[in-house]
Amino acid sequence: MVTTTYQVQGMTCGHCVNSVSTEVSALPGVTDVQVDLASGRVTVTSESPLDTDTVRAAVDEAGYDLVGA
Amino acid sequence: MVTTTYQVQGMTCGHCVNSVSTEVSALPGVTDVQVDLASGRVTVTSESPLDTDTVRAAVDEAGYDLVGA
Repeated sequence: MVTTTYQVQGMTCGHCVNSVSTEVSALPGVTDVQVDLASGRVTVTSESPLDTDTVRAAVDEAGYDLVGA
Repeated sequence: MVTTTYQVQGMTCGHCVNSVSTEVSALPGVTDVQVDLASGRVTVTSESPLDTDTVRAAVDEAGYDLVGA
């Protein structure tokens, strides 16, 4: 298992948290997603290391931006 | 037709707008709901005057607060 923390910009409420969580959870190999609204931190647990661009695309699909990386 | 504008507190994103819009639209006699996220203003068109407490309950159900009135 691999745990990676990403920084996401633009989440303002619980609905935003749900959207990001749903999209990232749907990625192959992802077993857990924890989103902290206040900090914008998204912690993803996966069976193997994730491609950052794949995570970025999922976050983008939810309507938000991955910061850095 | 009657158009009434309410002030709603706590909406931060498009999801919030959708939640409020969905709940208020479901009230009997409501034919249109326009929500302005920036100002928090919710403009409701209905067949006859609405009971403010009914609108307040719908907004509350969506997870937000009707201000004043």
